Amino acid sequence: MDKLTKVDFDVRISAAREVARRNKLDAIMVFSTECEPAQVRYFSDYWPSFETAAVLIPAKGEPALLIGPESLTYASARTKIPNVIQLMDFRESSQPDYPGSKLPKWKDVVARYRLKKIGLSGYFLFPYAMMVPLAKAMGGIKNIIPADDIVRPLYMKKSAAEIRCIKAAAKASEAGFKAILDAIKPGMTESELCGIATQAMTAAGAEATGYPIWCCSGPNSNQAISRPTLRKVKRGEIIHFSIGAKVEGYSASIGRPVVLGKCPEATLKFLQVGLDAANMTFDEMRAGRNAGDVAKKIHQFIIDKGYGDAILYGPCHGCGQMECEYPFLETSSTYTLEAGMTFMQDMFLHRGNQGFRWEDGLLVKAKGPAEMLSSYGRKINVID
Amino acid sequence: MDKLTKVDFDVRISAAREVARRNKLDAIMVFSTECEPAQVRYFSDYWPSFETAAVLIPAKGEPALLIGPESLTYASARTKIPNVIQLMDFRESSQPDYPGSKLPKWKDVVARYRLKKIGLSGYFLFPYAMMVPLAKAMGGIKNIIPADDIVRPLYMKKSAAEIRCIKAAAKASEAGFKAILDAIKPGMTESELCGIATQAMTAAGAEATGYPIWCCSGPNSNQAISRPTLRKVKRGEIIHFSIGAKVEGYSASIGRPVVLGKCPEATLKFLQVGLDAANMTFDEMRAGRNAGDVAKKIHQFIIDKGYGDAILYGPCHGCGQMECEYPFLETSSTYTLEAGMTFMQDMFLHRGNQGFRWEDGLLVKAKGPAEMLSSYGRKINVID
Repeated sequence: MDKLTKVDFDVRISAAREVARRNKLDAIMVFSTECEPAQVRYFSDYWPSFETAAVLIPAKGEPALLIGPESLTYASARTKIPNVIQLMDFRESSQPDYPGSKLPKWKDVVARYRLKKIGLSGYFLFPYAMMVPLAKAMGGIKNIIPADDIVRPLYMKKSAAEIRCIKAAAKASEAGFKAILDAIKPGMTESELCGIATQAMTAAGAEATGYPIWCCSGPNSNQAISRPTLRKVKRGEIIHFSIGAKVEGYSASIGRPVVLGKCPEATLKFLQVGLDAANMTFDEMRAGRNAGDVAKKIHQFIIDKGYGDAILYGPCHGCGQMECEYPFLETSSTYTLEAGMTFMQDMFLHRGNQGFRWEDGLLVKAKGPAEMLSSYGRKINVID
Repeated sequence: MDKLTKVDFDVRISAAREVARRNKLDAIMVFSTECEPAQVRYFSDYWPSFETAAVLIPAKGEPALLIGPESLTYASARTKIPNVIQLMDFRESSQPDYPGSKLPKWKDVVARYRLKKIGLSGYFLFPYAMMVPLAKAMGGIKNIIPADDIVRPLYMKKSAAEIRCIKAAAKASEAGFKAILDAIKPGMTESELCGIATQAMTAAGAEATGYPIWCCSGPNSNQAISRPTLRKVKRGEIIHFSIGAKVEGYSASIGRPVVLGKCPEATLKFLQVGLDAANMTFDEMRAGRNAGDVAKKIHQFIIDKGYGDAILYGPCHGCGQMECEYPFLETSSTYTLEAGMTFMQDMFLHRGNQGFRWEDGLLVKAKGPAEMLSSYGRKINVID
């Protein structure tokens, strides 16, 4: 627990204050849920579960962590922001009454911080039912500005401390995939294999998985997003793993196809095109290059090999507190790559009922090709 | 994978249609996210990850599963609803462009199903940014009725198949807690112990954990909601576990305090009051009784023992597809207990920097006391 310090969090709060001032806002507010915890954790180190949460960062004055009725002891133990305010609106979806509880309302928060215009990041997650009382307290929705676009630049270039966290997450993810390679046998279920990886990652220093990890096998292998099932893995089919750990809030991921027994020639060829495209990506991701140009070059390579129909997205997406965070690297991307940006090189291809992912962390360097953050088992693993 | 069948899902769709008709609505729509997957899974068996999802159930005609741009192969492999529609609004929070994709919009869905007035369940989760285009397509927010109150009665009494799933989840949760008791030693981290439980639960037939499970130890033990950390567990302190598995979408949970080495007398007494109150709950939870009266009786017992200040909520909450689902059982509750309702008996007490939870599944029976769905290690576990 020595990678991020109170100073790191103070720097973040100051940067958000500056964003508020520059945009003539009284405050920036970021919102998070159990499955989208990144923004609240970035500013407070608190990580909601069951309930939702927000961080309010006034242009002048001290920030506040906003939490629900049941999380006070949990949040108090975690938060780097001393001021914690509980609101009923952040309660869990089963909507307990908490009889007798007298929590402040949005209008109290708005009055206390004298908020006339705020920027809200996590705008696309923010519930309608919470926006109605907030907008009323703020004198209208016009005073709540979508702020993801102005806050995201704070997250895009990683500090040295953040890079240490992501590298530690990548290392723990490798321990998870190693445990799978050591244990996998025909007849094990997809879910069981994910459990083995979880055990190994937490034993290797992860606080948790970085996202709901999965294994998808045989006819399930064509799933770009998935969840593991009780299907038993078999010989001769693609068994594809997306395994990732979380360390101090930072997530990594490792994507690998595995084949037990013999792998058909056509499958080998398909897997190799994916791996070649994935490997190329590290050489292309250089500071100063246009992101869209990189995506076009990688896609063109796949098209030239005859697998253009197998492309769904990619070939990279941002990573940090979310395993998949803004920005994606797509053929439509217009931003310029900079040293200190971290991505997941994420090459997912699918055709018919076969699919697979090659994925490892990627750090853009000041000079030369990108650094690969995990590499364990980054080959076509055909296991007898 | 033989606990729920297509027939179970057809019955659910029919029941939702009936709710729509009775309330003069053209359709019921339920909304889910990665961490609040219950309602979409209940009607479709699909379980979103990264992206969000909804199920649209017209009063007349066939239902539709609404998903995001990346989940088509995943959703198609899982859904019991053949008709799947992709909308960009259900994409993940990192907001990829998916250049070239041409997905329908809310106005297309509204036109296709001729929707004039709908009921929306999961209303309290539904994002503002999605409500705006939906309301516009529907001719105003007045035509989107909050429907959690009218849909929830469908979930509250469980079918025989659902009870089988919850019991299987409770059994897998016991395997998780057994693995912890077998492995726990001073110096292991909270996260590591959770990883061990996850491995054991998935090996015992769970598809995943039922929620983000936790261990909180020592000064962390007073956290009602928590997440595990890299803190190493020590002798003589309360180490408290909330461990739960998911089977076919149904979640259970086991809450247990554990002490390594010697347990101070005052701590033993505190733990015992909690266990006595927890045990009483099973005898009180009888069909025909008023839920609020049960809560008052259990709370009064704790108050009489001198621990009234240690109560945060409870003593039960609903369980099913969500480990914690509507309704809570609180002193303010007014509903009547019925046979077939399932709860988690959830007794969390905290005072100062000590706290713990006793929790096990509970099924209300037609006659007599409630059935306890898990019991492994339901005692004060002091381990030398």
